[in-house]
Amino acid sequence: MLEKIDLSQSIERAVYKSELKALEKRLAALQQPIKDLEIPVLIVFEGWSASGKGTSISRILYPLDPRHFSVHTLGKSPEEWIMRPFLFPYWTRIPAKGRISIFDKSWHRLILPVYAERMRLGSKAKEEFFYDVNAFEQQLRDNGTIIIKFFLHISKEAQQERFRALEDNPSSAWRVEAHDREQNNNYDYYLKHYDEMVIKTNYKDSQWHIIEADDSKFATVKILSSIVNRVESEIKRLNEIESIPSSTLTTPVKYPQAGILSAVNPNMKLKDKDYKECLENLQSRISNLGFILYKARRSVVIVYEGWDAAGKGGNIKRLTEPLDPRCYDVIPIGAPSAVELDHHYLWRFMNRMPKDGHMAIFDRSWYGRVMVERVENFTPYERCQDAYQEINDMERHLVNHGTIIFKFWLHIDKNEQLQRFEARKNDPTKHYKITDEDWRNREKWEEYENVIDEMLLKTSTICAPWTIVESNDKKYARIKTLEIVVEELEKQLE
Amino acid sequence: MLEKIDLSQSIERAVYKSELKALEKRLAALQQPIKDLEIPVLIVFEGWSASGKGTSISRILYPLDPRHFSVHTLGKSPEEWIMRPFLFPYWTRIPAKGRISIFDKSWHRLILPVYAERMRLGSKAKEEFFYDVNAFEQQLRDNGTIIIKFFLHISKEAQQERFRALEDNPSSAWRVEAHDREQNNNYDYYLKHYDEMVIKTNYKDSQWHIIEADDSKFATVKILSSIVNRVESEIKRLNEIESIPSSTLTTPVKYPQAGILSAVNPNMKLKDKDYKECLENLQSRISNLGFILYKARRSVVIVYEGWDAAGKGGNIKRLTEPLDPRCYDVIPIGAPSAVELDHHYLWRFMNRMPKDGHMAIFDRSWYGRVMVERVENFTPYERCQDAYQEINDMERHLVNHGTIIFKFWLHIDKNEQLQRFEARKNDPTKHYKITDEDWRNREKWEEYENVIDEMLLKTSTICAPWTIVESNDKKYARIKTLEIVVEELEKQLE
Repeated sequence: MLEKIDLSQSIERAVYKSELKALEKRLAALQQPIKDLEIPVLIVFEGWSASGKGTSISRILYPLDPRHFSVHTLGKSPEEWIMRPFLFPYWTRIPAKGRISIFDKSWHRLILPVYAERMRLGSKAKEEFFYDVNAFEQQLRDNGTIIIKFFLHISKEAQQERFRALEDNPSSAWRVEAHDREQNNNYDYYLKHYDEMVIKTNYKDSQWHIIEADDSKFATVKILSSIVNRVESEIKRLNEIESIPSSTLTTPVKYPQAGILSAVNPNMKLKDKDYKECLENLQSRISNLGFILYKARRSVVIVYEGWDAAGKGGNIKRLTEPLDPRCYDVIPIGAPSAVELDHHYLWRFMNRMPKDGHMAIFDRSWYGRVMVERVENFTPYERCQDAYQEINDMERHLVNHGTIIFKFWLHIDKNEQLQRFEARKNDPTKHYKITDEDWRNREKWEEYENVIDEMLLKTSTICAPWTIVESNDKKYARIKTLEIVVEELEKQLE
Repeated sequence: MLEKIDLSQSIERAVYKSELKALEKRLAALQQPIKDLEIPVLIVFEGWSASGKGTSISRILYPLDPRHFSVHTLGKSPEEWIMRPFLFPYWTRIPAKGRISIFDKSWHRLILPVYAERMRLGSKAKEEFFYDVNAFEQQLRDNGTIIIKFFLHISKEAQQERFRALEDNPSSAWRVEAHDREQNNNYDYYLKHYDEMVIKTNYKDSQWHIIEADDSKFATVKILSSIVNRVESEIKRLNEIESIPSSTLTTPVKYPQAGILSAVNPNMKLKDKDYKECLENLQSRISNLGFILYKARRSVVIVYEGWDAAGKGGNIKRLTEPLDPRCYDVIPIGAPSAVELDHHYLWRFMNRMPKDGHMAIFDRSWYGRVMVERVENFTPYERCQDAYQEINDMERHLVNHGTIIFKFWLHIDKNEQLQRFEARKNDPTKHYKITDEDWRNREKWEEYENVIDEMLLKTSTICAPWTIVESNDKKYARIKTLEIVVEELEKQLE
């Protein structure tokens, strides 16, 4: 693909000047609607060394208000990033609503040989890599993000010429590094890999714009006009959608009638004596597993979901007690903050994903998207429906990285919940644990049962299955979750 | 100091069991008042290798709800941290209101030879190091944080014994590393340095608790009782303060009558032709300085403050236009978010301080503490008064690290502001730039003049002086700020 591009394209100086002025004006005028319509805009620059990425970014910024964008340089991956799923640094830097993020270099290059080795992506992982990249870009697009990807393409000769010019000037000679020269010497080898990278990540709605960059003026005009046209057409589209009366968009809510929860009897029991014995045994095993995990550089994510008062806190406590406190984080999830609401809903979770060797224990999680956000209509029905695939893709990305995921649904029946609520109400030391919201949620028990069924049905995947934990007896529930965690970790880490 | 500690202390098993139970109960009971009174609690563990820091932390956590604390392991400093002021990783991890943060290893050890070298703290910097540490802890205390510092002290023999025990077990042998052995072999050398570290950071209200840790049971009891006693007495103190009627606490507001601003005539002017020439010259110089800065690994902080409509945005634009977008960040500061309000007010700024080689440009800043927060009574008068020293100390810490700081006050007169407000109101493309709040602030012009005078008086320090920029003529103002930045950077980087 890339070798067929005609790099001799150029633009006359006079045409350039007038085009540039017109494009800058249009770009400047887009800032306000981007903000008003709350569109996140992500502009990605990839390309050869010395192809002019920095200069191109400067040219885009020139007409923009410096308070509306951020530029992220993402070429080098520090150890901190390598110890996390490869999309981590990009996920955590996605633009908020109404903001423009510009990435100087991107996730795409991680598949190039020199990076893939450092990122510990084996050749076997190539397919998974492209799947994860595709899913990530799809997530952002589905969330309303405009993604504009540029590949700055220059010829071997132009690159050589640019290195020479930099080197001839003593004040800029240091900017040409050994690996730059190496790229030029092996231009064809790199071309082949860039080509694969571009072709395999060239998805619908986030295609690459290949920029012929031998002539930097031509490149500037093509980049600016690509951005301006894309954003303008998106704004036009959004304004048209806005004018459709919202009532016609309402879809009737359908439940799959799966009956998953109602088939589970939450009344399993464990004798006191058995509980003590099992607990001691499992806790001593998990304590040891904490160290093995650390040494093996594997990460673990444990999700606790369940009815209010189902015993999440007590379960988590039994699990963490024997662990070295340096190897885990307990992450309680409440309503999102204003900053979090300004981002993709998965953003705040990706921000907290564990480093290799560590455990992250989520007390409630991203599954709020398809439970409370759906029942309370915080999020449109269609977006809640999209979430199943989005969540599955995110979890798959973690598993591809090597993360071990557990997902527990702590199940009690309605009567048991009532008894626990009453007990909390009457115990002054536990009084704070019960709120009006808990009572309100309880009134919607049947509706929750339906959405939970759908959630279990659609997000129990091979790589990250759900376990329903019968929790009317707290002791039984604690032993069951602990046992599952311990046995799976022993299997995976042996 | 340390060598005089009697390490033979121990505790009987039966006493230990009953003491432990009682202390755990008291600690658990403290969680609710810590939350209700919104106290940030910071517990710091320092000490020898294998002195039991991890085990001690586990013991503290045992009675706690895992949702109320976080544990941070801060022994190794990745390159990311070294490229920032040395307190950066600690500042960014301070506890929020009502939360407990536990640091496994702390800033104190950075002065030990092995760290000091890596952190690029020369021996000349020792004095500054201790000043900065003192100021940091003072900041946190003044903000209501309880700081509890433990030094876990063991004898050479006990350490050797523990290493041997770990090594004898194949599953734990890997935990003893070469540098651990080295510490044991050079015990006296390390003792001398630990001693200095402890003595020189042993300030009032954040003294070190030296824990005799040869007997781990004794250590556990001493640590737990230190925490419980300290927090209990702080809660008692706070409850007593709360009961004093707040009216008796009001201090009359005094202004220094400095007349700093009123002595400045904001009417300096520049001819169009001169402006163009100067701008071109200065922009080409700063463009080059961006690269030099990067190569020299120096960081720059530029603060823009000024009256509403004084032209901060236009000034920033002229400065950033010629810069490589990868070398700077523009950070617009608005009202703090809920998460930010839950932390020390400087936390959100420390989070954004530039890495070496980069520039951070603040469009408004931490000076909001002594302007809007004071005028609008968002913060008690006494805390606003504390802020001058706190801000000076923070800036000094940056300068000690090598950061170059500029602080600009853009000064226009009241009449000029009115004209700009009117112009914005009447221009549909600039209409969004003017809000009701701007008009309300304008009504308080005289009060602001007083607090700004006091701010300029008390925070214009030798290492980070203020520059008042006469801004009735936008062109003059832009050239003046640019010139100051360019000339100072050329001087410092030549």
